[in-house]
Amino acid sequence: MLRRGRLKPPTDEMISEYTSSMRADVRIFKPVVQINMAHIIMLAERRIIPEEDAAAILRALHELHERGVEALELRPELEDIHMAVEKFVIAATDEEVGGKLHTAKSRNDQVAAAIRMTLRKDLLEVQAALLELIGNLIALAEKNTRTIMPGYTHLQVAEPTTFAHYLVAHASAFLRDADRLSHALEQASSCPMGACALAGTSFPIDRMRVARLLGFKHILENTIDAVGGRDFALQTISALAISMVNVSRLADELVLWGSAEFDMIEMPDEFAATSSIMPQKKNPVVAEIARAKAGRLTGNLVGALAVMKALPQSYNLDLQDLTPLLWDAIDQTRDSLKAMSKLMGAIEPKPEVMRERAEMSFATATELADTLVRRAGLAFRDAHAVVGRMVARAVKEHKSPRALSIEDLQAACREILGKGISLTEKEFKEAWDAEKCVEARGTLGGPAPKVIKGQINQLRRAVKNREKLVRARARAIAKAETKLLKDVRRRVR
Amino acid sequence: MLRRGRLKPPTDEMISEYTSSMRADVRIFKPVVQINMAHIIMLAERRIIPEEDAAAILRALHELHERGVEALELRPELEDIHMAVEKFVIAATDEEVGGKLHTAKSRNDQVAAAIRMTLRKDLLEVQAALLELIGNLIALAEKNTRTIMPGYTHLQVAEPTTFAHYLVAHASAFLRDADRLSHALEQASSCPMGACALAGTSFPIDRMRVARLLGFKHILENTIDAVGGRDFALQTISALAISMVNVSRLADELVLWGSAEFDMIEMPDEFAATSSIMPQKKNPVVAEIARAKAGRLTGNLVGALAVMKALPQSYNLDLQDLTPLLWDAIDQTRDSLKAMSKLMGAIEPKPEVMRERAEMSFATATELADTLVRRAGLAFRDAHAVVGRMVARAVKEHKSPRALSIEDLQAACREILGKGISLTEKEFKEAWDAEKCVEARGTLGGPAPKVIKGQINQLRRAVKNREKLVRARARAIAKAETKLLKDVRRRVR
Amino acid sequence: MLRRGRLKPPTDEMISEYTSSMRADVRIFKPVVQINMAHIIMLAERRIIPEEDAAAILRALHELHERGVEALELRPELEDIHMAVEKFVIAATDEEVGGKLHTAKSRNDQVAAAIRMTLRKDLLEVQAALLELIGNLIALAEKNTRTIMPGYTHLQVAEPTTFAHYLVAHASAFLRDADRLSHALEQASSCPMGACALAGTSFPIDRMRVARLLGFKHILENTIDAVGGRDFALQTISALAISMVNVSRLADELVLWGSAEFDMIEMPDEFAATSSIMPQKKNPVVAEIARAKAGRLTGNLVGALAVMKALPQSYNLDLQDLTPLLWDAIDQTRDSLKAMSKLMGAIEPKPEVMRERAEMSFATATELADTLVRRAGLAFRDAHAVVGRMVARAVKEHKSPRALSIEDLQAACREILGKGISLTEKEFKEAWDAEKCVEARGTLGGPAPKVIKGQINQLRRAVKNREKLVRARARAIAKAETKLLKDVRRRVR
Amino acid sequence: MLRRGRLKPPTDEMISEYTSSMRADVRIFKPVVQINMAHIIMLAERRIIPEEDAAAILRALHELHERGVEALELRPELEDIHMAVEKFVIAATDEEVGGKLHTAKSRNDQVAAAIRMTLRKDLLEVQAALLELIGNLIALAEKNTRTIMPGYTHLQVAEPTTFAHYLVAHASAFLRDADRLSHALEQASSCPMGACALAGTSFPIDRMRVARLLGFKHILENTIDAVGGRDFALQTISALAISMVNVSRLADELVLWGSAEFDMIEMPDEFAATSSIMPQKKNPVVAEIARAKAGRLTGNLVGALAVMKALPQSYNLDLQDLTPLLWDAIDQTRDSLKAMSKLMGAIEPKPEVMRERAEMSFATATELADTLVRRAGLAFRDAHAVVGRMVARAVKEHKSPRALSIEDLQAACREILGKGISLTEKEFKEAWDAEKCVEARGTLGGPAPKVIKGQINQLRRAVKNREKLVRARARAIAKAETKLLKDVRRRVR
Repeated sequence: MLRRGRLKPPTDEMISEYTSSMRADVRIFKPVVQINMAHIIMLAERRIIPEEDAAAILRALHELHERGVEALELRPELEDIHMAVEKFVIAATDEEVGGKLHTAKSRNDQVAAAIRMTLRKDLLEVQAALLELIGNLIALAEKNTRTIMPGYTHLQVAEPTTFAHYLVAHASAFLRDADRLSHALEQASSCPMGACALAGTSFPIDRMRVARLLGFKHILENTIDAVGGRDFALQTISALAISMVNVSRLADELVLWGSAEFDMIEMPDEFAATSSIMPQKKNPVVAEIARAKAGRLTGNLVGALAVMKALPQSYNLDLQDLTPLLWDAIDQTRDSLKAMSKLMGAIEPKPEVMRERAEMSFATATELADTLVRRAGLAFRDAHAVVGRMVARAVKEHKSPRALSIEDLQAACREILGKGISLTEKEFKEAWDAEKCVEARGTLGGPAPKVIKGQINQLRRAVKNREKLVRARARAIAKAETKLLKDVRRRVR
Repeated sequence: MLRRGRLKPPTDEMISEYTSSMRADVRIFKPVVQINMAHIIMLAERRIIPEEDAAAILRALHELHERGVEALELRPELEDIHMAVEKFVIAATDEEVGGKLHTAKSRNDQVAAAIRMTLRKDLLEVQAALLELIGNLIALAEKNTRTIMPGYTHLQVAEPTTFAHYLVAHASAFLRDADRLSHALEQASSCPMGACALAGTSFPIDRMRVARLLGFKHILENTIDAVGGRDFALQTISALAISMVNVSRLADELVLWGSAEFDMIEMPDEFAATSSIMPQKKNPVVAEIARAKAGRLTGNLVGALAVMKALPQSYNLDLQDLTPLLWDAIDQTRDSLKAMSKLMGAIEPKPEVMRERAEMSFATATELADTLVRRAGLAFRDAHAVVGRMVARAVKEHKSPRALSIEDLQAACREILGKGISLTEKEFKEAWDAEKCVEARGTLGGPAPKVIKGQINQLRRAVKNREKLVRARARAIAKAETKLLKDVRRRVR
Repeated sequence: MLRRGRLKPPTDEMISEYTSSMRADVRIFKPVVQINMAHIIMLAERRIIPEEDAAAILRALHELHERGVEALELRPELEDIHMAVEKFVIAATDEEVGGKLHTAKSRNDQVAAAIRMTLRKDLLEVQAALLELIGNLIALAEKNTRTIMPGYTHLQVAEPTTFAHYLVAHASAFLRDADRLSHALEQASSCPMGACALAGTSFPIDRMRVARLLGFKHILENTIDAVGGRDFALQTISALAISMVNVSRLADELVLWGSAEFDMIEMPDEFAATSSIMPQKKNPVVAEIARAKAGRLTGNLVGALAVMKALPQSYNLDLQDLTPLLWDAIDQTRDSLKAMSKLMGAIEPKPEVMRERAEMSFATATELADTLVRRAGLAFRDAHAVVGRMVARAVKEHKSPRALSIEDLQAACREILGKGISLTEKEFKEAWDAEKCVEARGTLGGPAPKVIKGQINQLRRAVKNREKLVRARARAIAKAETKLLKDVRRRVR
Repeated sequence: MLRRGRLKPPTDEMISEYTSSMRADVRIFKPVVQINMAHIIMLAERRIIPEEDAAAILRALHELHERGVEALELRPELEDIHMAVEKFVIAATDEEVGGKLHTAKSRNDQVAAAIRMTLRKDLLEVQAALLELIGNLIALAEKNTRTIMPGYTHLQVAEPTTFAHYLVAHASAFLRDADRLSHALEQASSCPMGACALAGTSFPIDRMRVARLLGFKHILENTIDAVGGRDFALQTISALAISMVNVSRLADELVLWGSAEFDMIEMPDEFAATSSIMPQKKNPVVAEIARAKAGRLTGNLVGALAVMKALPQSYNLDLQDLTPLLWDAIDQTRDSLKAMSKLMGAIEPKPEVMRERAEMSFATATELADTLVRRAGLAFRDAHAVVGRMVARAVKEHKSPRALSIEDLQAACREILGKGISLTEKEFKEAWDAEKCVEARGTLGGPAPKVIKGQINQLRRAVKNREKLVRARARAIAKAETKLLKDVRRRVR
């Protein structure tokens, strides 16, 4: 259709397929129709096209909206959905009327607008999934504020903490992810329509009117930037990739905790698979796939950044190849968040094992060193050395933490400091007890049950507020869509 | 020093070098000293260590602050700057007093805090450089609101526009970069101190007090998250990488425009190099290096994401390997922005060549098609086909755009539509004139001089506001630093 | 089916979908059936299962082979194609017989083998496409050994060369790509079957027999490595990505050369698109898409590397998420090579424009400097300075290269060296002529027509040899497939 | 020096610093001097410059070679090492003589040659480190062919295997890495000298002669490709990155195995660090850093690919920004391989713990299912279900694997199949014993001690062969260097 004037018809199907975006465009079908509707309403209002032509075109668009994307021919030689829609409208009206559809707009501004409209809904859905995951994490945390578990650094048991403390750590990171997605959504929520090919038009169009009909509050002002900018997509994929990196960290811990060696959680059957050959296996498949997705998202991000690198301003067809990376990033993240959310809603800790591990690995050594500082007046570095020596000796002699007594500590003192210290057996035992140790950790943000409950409540409020915002945004979009359709129907009648 | 108790001394220099962060730590020396100061003040205030010990330690820290990083032994077997500082303090006081420096803190929270303190200054500097670049772009734009140049899509001349319109397009993208950096700065501006190794402490510390002494408004609450989270770094590198992608697009256009074929700008000598062998060359070296940096930054981002992927929560030494990627990302971006800023302050367009190109490549074809719609009542698709046919014929017959007349248009009409149209020679000529065409493009965000001036003014205000904010933030940090030093001096006296 | 013993049935469709590889597995259907056939033949030969059971199973597999993948239920809750095939066989025989299919094998070795079998064919196809592209490049080069064009460095005209010289440069790089793909193919061509889950089996299987039945010459020996290694995939995607980077460099030059400013090639209509709004445009869409693919491939590579990073040995489900990245990398590269190959077979240079550009941009300056060295006895650095000065003055005075004479050179000499030189007008003119300059460049690998013809002939032989190899490898695989089917049919009768 | 003719002197230090490669060039100093020597020898032999000038220049170069890089001024405004060397030579001879140094060459071919010369040595060193790591792995394997340990898939205990089997798996992957590095080395080992700026020269140079003087067997023929191709660097970084991914998988397992939960290896003190706060910790710092490097290398690779993407052929300054990524990739990999090699030479398994874990996690379940197939005539799927049920019941009833008897199996049989099976208690016990199970795994490439010894011997031979090759290549380079210096000295006398 576009080739009548300037170019000979294409002859090679493979080439059409290679350069066409038709397949990926199905995803933006609905916004493309809405954009055409809004644009025609504005053209009619501004008297750029006659009311009756507008009505005829809107009738065709409305029919298309009702029948859905199946009504279109999606052959690659039509290049893209924009041409397929125009072809439909021309067929439904006639060349003279339908040919006016493309007045004062271009595929360049239209595709940018359609991507943003699809994206803003997708981002709301991703945010909702993320907030649900956070919700499930803190619900589980709430039940486990007193579930003692080992805290690890370098995958070495470090200090005792609680399962709740761990879950809240992940939830806190996810909340920042939600904020990054929210910032990305803001950046995506400007309307490029009216930029036309790259330099606007001499028709007296009203860009703000089209933007509002499509539920946008702002326009992307500079018209070259409006058609050629894709940093909103880069920012979105970045935010999604960072969020999947955070997911992968939780997923990796689930794989670890579910191993026979850690044995600290029970992976519910629905989230595990067995082996085709080894019948005793309970493979943490959801967690593994979720872990892998951080790799895939990083790949999507790199692909998108590399496509944009050193590309001259305004529209180049390279941009077409970026879009599928964006949709894949959205889909993978949303599905992963939903799967992880379900998983976290079903997982069960094994408190006895957790506690056992916390006590058996000298995790309370720091607390003992701190006690030496407080009660026996040692400098921290000396206390650190004394406790370290006691532990080294116990490891060498295969002595369990529970078998240690004040005597072992005194022996280590004498070796390191050349003298004993004054500490009672009771003080020693209290410092050496995981539960007491955790309760003593009253630091803001720390694991003491009272403190962690504060964190949970704060997170819950934060989730609620963000959920409200997400719902409000979704409602505003739905309202704009309904209103647009009503406007169209009014004009079509 | 740390190995007295638990581990035998290391014997292998190569291994020390491999696992030590000493070299990279020089960059965080100053904040590490400040953190130690603030921490000691808090410990004394909370009576966790005696006033006189605090004074002795602060005296040592103050001396270190005065003498600078050169006062430290930076041998890799000391592992990192944190141990080097502690060693210095112990040497300057004695084991019993200096050994108290590490009470209720850990290298895990300290390094996270020091990175964030360094980063918040770096990000302000990057933002300032970016705002200066935008300033230079719009200053140049202001001088060129009537400099007609071809607007390109697909690197094909599309429609006439102005040099100002192009420059403002880049400036608009950079302004979004500034906002992304600002959001990254917010995320970085929380204080992890007090998280200790990962689970806080049983000493009655005051995290907010330390945070405020260090110029932070917020703390990173959950202590596991506080030591193990690096999404602030991922977000920062993302924002920097996206910004360098935007820089690379400008840089690529400068390379193009400076080629003999485009010949649309004069690259000032200071920003070009000649060849060692070809004496006539004027190579756009600044633009080329700036273009390449988008690749490097993408690499930094990937490195950082991949390091974090699937890493269990809290501190793992892998995090140490992420930090140099962050600093490199900052340095490369800051330098690139400064170089590009200077370049854009010096570059000169060649208006005659630009205009010539805009007129010689049928750039006004769209405007002519629009005129056919407006004046001759054609549907846009028909007008598009007619003008396309006229252009195809002219190209085939090697006829220049300027040589075309209303007759050529009528001939094309007859071929396509089977009839002529009513359009005067004057209407034809006006549509075919690049300058008139640009003036007619009064769309919001378009190239018409009046319209672009509005965009420039708006951008200037936006830059001013952000510059104010950047300065205010820098002042607040400086004030906190001064205050901290004053507090230290008061206690040391 | 697998869950009868150990796990409760899954209840959540979304979770099945998330963890199932069913969709992507369609691509490996054929090899999966072949592997099952080869495995059963070996089991029967080694008397691990009875002949009659083998015959029954082979009958079912043969039927499946005939009916194709449509015969299978591909529901995600079956997890993957391996289970779907087993289900089919059990249904076609009965539980007692069909249940023997999985004796002494696992999905872990089977999926690795199936990926490698699919990949080796794919790689041969990619190689063939690459060799065809090289063929088209050198065919075009052959026609253009005397087509003078400017040689660029830094996108600045540097020295005159020929179109053939440029095309051969690209062809040379692509030949190295072919070698990298060939090395990747070698690495992929080992058979993991018999590794079972990760530790082989106590059944007396014959791994070499299965390998040979499947057309492999080698087995992947260590069984943990055999199921867990994916470096063959990483190496393949690397080779493909590097090759697409080379493609992107050619594609970018096509975009440049096809611009109105360079205007050095005619993009055939079938490989260009016009604008929906600007009728005069001829957008180089194939080249743009091909350029973008280097970004996408880089993303695929990163995704795959990041998935594998820090994954414990042997099989983890993360590996499943790598496979689609591999197939996408193959498909994108193959399609791009085919499209570029067609494009290079159709493109036409514009020799007059090329020559004009070569002469108008002082491209022969180096030759003139060299002449000063040879004829006038100047040191190269001095000659370089003299010619540079002459050019600088000409540029300043808007004097065209053709307007320069020996007098301008002498003037520059006097300025730089304080004296004139002895050079005749004829010597000056010869050095200043692009065609003569090119002919004089007789350096091995240089642009002189005689020399470039040698390069072309050498490349042609290299392509022929590699094409033979590709065909031989494809034949060997086809032969093994035919033989396997014959074996099966013999046993089924 | 270069700017005398064409350009005004640069005024801005920051810009010089930004565009200069001086800092990174120190690494290529030695080959740059050698290239200049070889080039001058050839120029003299071909009578392009007089013998006495050649002697004077060689004398200067020889002096520079003796004094080292410190003899040069490395100010950024000299742009790069090539100009610094030329400046040195001119100062040591005089303008007229030293000015001849740059006859018939360019920085473009020179820098490409110098990078390749540096790289071929670096790659040999990396290969040597890799082969040493393999050597240490198989030495450790040899001592542990009977050290039973659990084999994992999905980090779930799958089947019993041996520590040797695991180590050989890693060694096998590393051997492929060595082959990839070897292929990269081949691609890097062609000489670009004589390509000059991009189009050769009209001087009658002898490219093969220079190549041989520099120890190359081949030249990179096409001169545009010779200066503009960097796929050898991309291939090298790819090979290094894949190798570091393989390293990261071993490193991650070391971290796991060294955790208190797995507790299967003893990390020697020299390779661990303790905590600044938690005295009992023994952090696996070498393994953590080595794990992180796979991320960094992936970043380097992406940076390099993205720099090259869509870059026009021949030299662009962007290439300069790729080189530091190459050197960093080399350095990080070499250091990591050396550190891991030392670590693997020192690590000690804990055989009792390993064996205990192998027996306590139902790892022999597959062997039992296989036994049911062999002895009791069950189809594998049925056997799989029966054993699965027995395990599920044991887990539910907290029954240890060792406590299970033939009775439990019969009970599961009856539940699943509705009948018992005929298997003796002895057969049951044998199948249930980890050591017997491992011995039975006689599959080629499997864990049976006899079989694994075969793999070890084969690997040892492969390592020996490759070490010989590496040494031979290093010797050939050293010989060429010595010969070149001798030639120079002969001419200088």
